[in-house]
Amino acid sequence: MTADPIPPGFVPISRTGPFLDLFGPVYTKDEGSSTIVAVRVGDKHLNTLGIAHGGMLVTLADSALGINLSRALDVPRPMVTVNLSTDFLQPARRGDWLEAHVQVQRVGVHLAFASCHLKVGDRLILRASGVFAIIGPEVPLPAREDFDG
Amino acid sequence: MTADPIPPGFVPISRTGPFLDLFGPVYTKDEGSSTIVAVRVGDKHLNTLGIAHGGMLVTLADSALGINLSRALDVPRPMVTVNLSTDFLQPARRGDWLEAHVQVQRVGVHLAFASCHLKVGDRLILRASGVFAIIGPEVPLPAREDFDG
Amino acid sequence: MTADPIPPGFVPISRTGPFLDLFGPVYTKDEGSSTIVAVRVGDKHLNTLGIAHGGMLVTLADSALGINLSRALDVPRPMVTVNLSTDFLQPARRGDWLEAHVQVQRVGVHLAFASCHLKVGDRLILRASGVFAIIGPEVPLPAREDFDG
Amino acid sequence: MTADPIPPGFVPISRTGPFLDLFGPVYTKDEGSSTIVAVRVGDKHLNTLGIAHGGMLVTLADSALGINLSRALDVPRPMVTVNLSTDFLQPARRGDWLEAHVQVQRVGVHLAFASCHLKVGDRLILRASGVFAIIGPEVPLPAREDFDG
Repeated sequence: MTADPIPPGFVPISRTGPFLDLFGPVYTKDEGSSTIVAVRVGDKHLNTLGIAHGGMLVTLADSALGINLSRALDVPRPMVTVNLSTDFLQPARRGDWLEAHVQVQRVGVHLAFASCHLKVGDRLILRASGVFAIIGPEVPLPAREDFDG
Repeated sequence: MTADPIPPGFVPISRTGPFLDLFGPVYTKDEGSSTIVAVRVGDKHLNTLGIAHGGMLVTLADSALGINLSRALDVPRPMVTVNLSTDFLQPARRGDWLEAHVQVQRVGVHLAFASCHLKVGDRLILRASGVFAIIGPEVPLPAREDFDG
Repeated sequence: MTADPIPPGFVPISRTGPFLDLFGPVYTKDEGSSTIVAVRVGDKHLNTLGIAHGGMLVTLADSALGINLSRALDVPRPMVTVNLSTDFLQPARRGDWLEAHVQVQRVGVHLAFASCHLKVGDRLILRASGVFAIIGPEVPLPAREDFDG
Repeated sequence: MTADPIPPGFVPISRTGPFLDLFGPVYTKDEGSSTIVAVRVGDKHLNTLGIAHGGMLVTLADSALGINLSRALDVPRPMVTVNLSTDFLQPARRGDWLEAHVQVQRVGVHLAFASCHLKVGDRLILRASGVFAIIGPEVPLPAREDFDG
């Protein structure tokens, strides 16, 4: 894997959190108003069939949606995923350079909507639609009992 | 984390694949005709908000759906996820014992349907609905170009 | 169709709105804390294949989710659908008595979650998961430009 | 409603089935390789809040997905909806000219994938992702007991 080059323009992501650290390295590249988020599929991402685990694909999609929606906010505010609907069109394999392309549809006061295509070259691997709740300033951290209050 | 006990009846899962190895340890416990799949939420599962990453939750749900559907087949045949729709009701946190409870709705010739609730005690964290394609014996491994052919 | 009896305990629904009037008659029956919502599949509900149209099934599911969530609120407040994820397991046919069984998972301050099974006898036709936004008292009617503000 | 003009290029759809007859009139317009499917929102499409019923929006989306996927097949074969995931971004109102714009992502042997945006002008009302099962020639009509066999 280490021999595979990183495509030009991609840089390693900085603030990721522990789960993305485990999952990564994750790379980003700005393209117009959106940010492509990518990862090289490695041995560690595979399931028992030898293809990328479904949860691995969704992890990349969820992260890419969150990263793009954060940048779409005027004022930084935390967001949590409310719904994620995902369709798996084709498998991704070891060595694939897997890119998440995000389109933000709407950022409201409480809710934000964006969708994502995971692609290997022109091949569509997964499509995802996400709904996110924007946490208000009066709720600086999601409370244990309720994150939509 | 290591001091937290594993609830009685749960045993470590054996055949998992690399991504679940990274994600786990994962535990299972048979209960009637279904298998509860569980994990202790650790530091490595968190996002930058300090709660379990959305992709982590979906990874557990997808795995639990696959494990239960495999056991529902008369003859073992590989399956791939076609659609996964997930709703995030409450956050999971470090130290939580997170259980996936699966209900199989239908196993057809080509398609199988099951749903899953992730719970911490009585608290509902995530609900997921999955559609899976059952790979035919004539397609021993999903081809690069097409897994539903 | 007119000869088919309505199962005991079901009564025609009263306040429905124009689209449900067109779609119905719709019947309800209280069972514990939830309300079963049902319709007799008629000629008018069919698609060109001679089975119930997908949109017809979703209309029943969406209505049943809304009816049950309204009753779960302490104070009546309008709600709008945010996400609806639906899986079609088997076709429904002319003459079928189609019942929607709803389970409310969570009613928060801004968001509510419930799921629904459409059944003909023991046969599962459709499963649906819904996320709804609860409109605040300060927003008596959804504004044209934004219903989540 | 009758005074509202039909935008240029749209023609009434011919073969629709009883449920779409009830729902319509429905109009289509070919644009490149895809077909826009549209309806004028009328009184009959509204719910008790005075906005288009969620089931009405999904009916249009499901129909538009089916129409476009049928045209994407080399040989005509019946299809049934397997999964439909829908997000409601803004309400549609009486008098709105509501257009469904479909993108076909993939047509396989057994499964087909397409997504749909419902729009009023530039306003995005609903996004939908659909998975469809293509019924084999050996199964000329979906059997009562199983449509994925």
